[in-house]
Amino acid sequence: MSGLSAALLCSKVQVLAPDLSIQLVRHDEGVISLFAALSDAGSSNITFLSHPKYLNQTHHTQAGAIVLNQNAWQSEQAMIACPSVIVCDNPYAFFAFASQVLQQAKKFQSSASVHPSAVISKDAQLGKNVGIGAFTVIGAGAVIGDNCDIASHVTIGEHVHMGSNTQLFSQVVLYDRVRLGSNNMIHAGTVIGSDGFGFAPYQKRWIKIPQTGTVVIGDDVEIGSNCSIDRGAMGDTIIGRGTKLDNLIQIAHNVHIGEDCAFAANIAIAGSAVLGNRIQIGGNAGVLGHLSVCDDVVISSCTLVTKTISKSGFYSGVYPIQENADWEKNAVALKRLNALRVQVRELEQRLSSSTNSPKTNI
Amino acid sequence: MSGLSAALLCSKVQVLAPDLSIQLVRHDEGVISLFAALSDAGSSNITFLSHPKYLNQTHHTQAGAIVLNQNAWQSEQAMIACPSVIVCDNPYAFFAFASQVLQQAKKFQSSASVHPSAVISKDAQLGKNVGIGAFTVIGAGAVIGDNCDIASHVTIGEHVHMGSNTQLFSQVVLYDRVRLGSNNMIHAGTVIGSDGFGFAPYQKRWIKIPQTGTVVIGDDVEIGSNCSIDRGAMGDTIIGRGTKLDNLIQIAHNVHIGEDCAFAANIAIAGSAVLGNRIQIGGNAGVLGHLSVCDDVVISSCTLVTKTISKSGFYSGVYPIQENADWEKNAVALKRLNALRVQVRELEQRLSSSTNSPKTNI
Amino acid sequence: MSGLSAALLCSKVQVLAPDLSIQLVRHDEGVISLFAALSDAGSSNITFLSHPKYLNQTHHTQAGAIVLNQNAWQSEQAMIACPSVIVCDNPYAFFAFASQVLQQAKKFQSSASVHPSAVISKDAQLGKNVGIGAFTVIGAGAVIGDNCDIASHVTIGEHVHMGSNTQLFSQVVLYDRVRLGSNNMIHAGTVIGSDGFGFAPYQKRWIKIPQTGTVVIGDDVEIGSNCSIDRGAMGDTIIGRGTKLDNLIQIAHNVHIGEDCAFAANIAIAGSAVLGNRIQIGGNAGVLGHLSVCDDVVISSCTLVTKTISKSGFYSGVYPIQENADWEKNAVALKRLNALRVQVRELEQRLSSSTNSPKTNI
Repeated sequence: MSGLSAALLCSKVQVLAPDLSIQLVRHDEGVISLFAALSDAGSSNITFLSHPKYLNQTHHTQAGAIVLNQNAWQSEQAMIACPSVIVCDNPYAFFAFASQVLQQAKKFQSSASVHPSAVISKDAQLGKNVGIGAFTVIGAGAVIGDNCDIASHVTIGEHVHMGSNTQLFSQVVLYDRVRLGSNNMIHAGTVIGSDGFGFAPYQKRWIKIPQTGTVVIGDDVEIGSNCSIDRGAMGDTIIGRGTKLDNLIQIAHNVHIGEDCAFAANIAIAGSAVLGNRIQIGGNAGVLGHLSVCDDVVISSCTLVTKTISKSGFYSGVYPIQENADWEKNAVALKRLNALRVQVRELEQRLSSSTNSPKTNI
Repeated sequence: MSGLSAALLCSKVQVLAPDLSIQLVRHDEGVISLFAALSDAGSSNITFLSHPKYLNQTHHTQAGAIVLNQNAWQSEQAMIACPSVIVCDNPYAFFAFASQVLQQAKKFQSSASVHPSAVISKDAQLGKNVGIGAFTVIGAGAVIGDNCDIASHVTIGEHVHMGSNTQLFSQVVLYDRVRLGSNNMIHAGTVIGSDGFGFAPYQKRWIKIPQTGTVVIGDDVEIGSNCSIDRGAMGDTIIGRGTKLDNLIQIAHNVHIGEDCAFAANIAIAGSAVLGNRIQIGGNAGVLGHLSVCDDVVISSCTLVTKTISKSGFYSGVYPIQENADWEKNAVALKRLNALRVQVRELEQRLSSSTNSPKTNI
Repeated sequence: MSGLSAALLCSKVQVLAPDLSIQLVRHDEGVISLFAALSDAGSSNITFLSHPKYLNQTHHTQAGAIVLNQNAWQSEQAMIACPSVIVCDNPYAFFAFASQVLQQAKKFQSSASVHPSAVISKDAQLGKNVGIGAFTVIGAGAVIGDNCDIASHVTIGEHVHMGSNTQLFSQVVLYDRVRLGSNNMIHAGTVIGSDGFGFAPYQKRWIKIPQTGTVVIGDDVEIGSNCSIDRGAMGDTIIGRGTKLDNLIQIAHNVHIGEDCAFAANIAIAGSAVLGNRIQIGGNAGVLGHLSVCDDVVISSCTLVTKTISKSGFYSGVYPIQENADWEKNAVALKRLNALRVQVRELEQRLSSSTNSPKTNI
């Protein structure tokens, strides 16, 4: 059983997050290997109190350790059943960091191996401790960093570069020359580096424009399953450090995405859009091409960004849901909305002339 | 040629659907192996009359058997060319059930084999009559039920459980510990069990929350191609018996979907949404997270469910399409709609005070 | 180094595009092998002037050749640094055609080989000069045309037909009996021929309708990554010559798409929709089933086509984006829009009766 003591876990989390306030207020030497929910946890699990309403579950949990905030600790101290207790001002962040520490502990115990069926070009360079699954193909000139974990059925094109500690799940496809950073995690079925959608119109037909750029992805990026990230036409498509993409997301050619963004599923970002840092976008939303969005913008689900946004804030554009019968009447009215507006203006003029009362100024 | 007589086909359909009214009104011993359209059918085919306007095609069809309703049979009896004729109150349902019977007949004739290139952990358990395609990988502790049909290039993680009669097409990925029911059909490129999109914000960065739950899918579920179904964060993502998903659908972590739902393509259901039974959702729609939708709800295409729905019915929220010039004017007016409403309220007040007429009560 | 002289390149482009006006106004024998951006180009590259604002970059470029229009040539002639200069009335189209010529030149130099790990049915027919990547599976009865380039991990079902010069990237899945034309390019992870979403309702459950048709794709079609194109229920799903699909697109069963269309990413076309020629659809849009769209229609992003369009033109239906606070007020008003309309009508009646002034006719 791999794992570590609560004391060692706390000190490792503190290294990752120096500003977290962490106190080990009760301590046992038992080894902790995994997080679990309060109700499911056993002696090798650590759990956390996500909401005060679960306080009384702390009396009976079998967890080896628990993380909670100062208030919970003050009120329940005597009743908490766990041999180790950690008090933290942000138990959720502790949970996230500690999980990383525990996963890392497990990883170093796993013996990274290369499956004999994998087809690896003799011109590819593999770092130390690289795991490669069955039927994975790695092309000539590829450079794979240390501690990378590559699953089965992965396609890595020629001259791909991957930083260290990067994990690719099954069926990921990296086209030629794609560059990933370190600490990336790419989920199954995602395709990076396919051709951008570029065609020159000529006599009512579409003539393909070669897509000779590539995709460059920074460190600490996670990309969900079945995403499509196209290579640039001449320059590159770029995703910045720390950005997280959910599943089934389309990133078109020459899009630039900044750092620490979070995009929900089924989003499409059109070609050459330039997005700043810390942008959050809800599911099914879209961004048109050749525009820019500044830092610290939040976009609602199902909203289409149709023009450049240069002021940080929260933006929406989604049709409200109603019972269908109500929706139908309102949708009919919406199709004549401008006529209604003209009608109101006329009413106002008629009222003003008939009564000689002063006009409203709206 | 595998297949069965019209009489045997009828009796097998009757077992599956005891409430269907089925009469074999004309009978021949010829073997039926497949459905075909009226115009394409040959002597080993069964066909069905989907609409009265095709009645005169029944005079010339080469089909070995036909299914139609009582009216059609009464009116055309003498003219119908087929050696076997089945009268049913719901020919479309007969067609569906009979197709299943015919497929099953074919399946038991196929010799399920395991391709020698497949990499199957010696700790995996395979049921009877399991077919496995080339380059498929099955992890340790996986349990595969009887009569499963697994295509090429499939990835089955460790400790995956699959019920019996379940079919996986090429390039399906099941992450570790995913549980499928019996009689599932999962189309190519679908990923089940990838990490949910869970991150704790900490100092303007995103810290990954481990996704330690899994995905649990009931019996008789069909999932289209290139879907992404994420594993739960701590608990599980659940899809109930009989639910059907089209292609390119996103199901986020900890979503619970009930029984007999039907979701069209490109839908996204956000995290922890709880959906009831018999819900139908149109293409490109979305459901926000942490809300619930009750049984027997129909949601239009492109509609975003933004709040809990607790009354069954038909709901919509999609912008009506218009010629672009009209749309532009109405969209401008929509952006000032609240101001228009205020203006109308003021007009009403001015009119009431100028005429002393009673206010309308709308 | 493969490639050709500027003179040979011009003559080959002229063959492909006889109506382009092409003049080689300055000529050098140097071999050209690839396009590159003005700023990056070297002596074996050809570049093009996309916009007059880059004119002064033509003075310093290292490119072996450049394409520009007559105006640019007139104004900068003496200053242009390139040994070969091509004047063309449509430099962008020249760029597209010339890139094809250059790629073709490269292709004929590549030695198409079949990887020994590929599993190819002995009943499959391969044309001349077919390349097949590692772990690709080709089923019985498949027919592959000359010069096809099939990457690794591709699944080609039984009785699939592919024309010549067609390229499949990794992880493409073609179900049984799918038919591709010549000069197709299908990007990674795309699935063609999965079952259409067809179920008969019976006693509140869904009974699967077998999908016995297939998919038929014309020549010169490009399909992006992670698309899903379903086979027809009885007839076929059809995509016409020259049509281009971006990534993550859903094409449902029995959809017919005409020629020279261009569809952006994340679009869903529902079952049995019939689309004409030269239709352009923006990202995240949708088309409902069983309707038709005539030739030469443009649909905006995020727009749902809800009824047949029989007049060519530009159509939109997308909610305008606003700051969320403004959106909220307008969305509330939108849900009562029909009531507002009734209220305005009443105001008009009251005003007319109180003043006896003639009614407006809007």
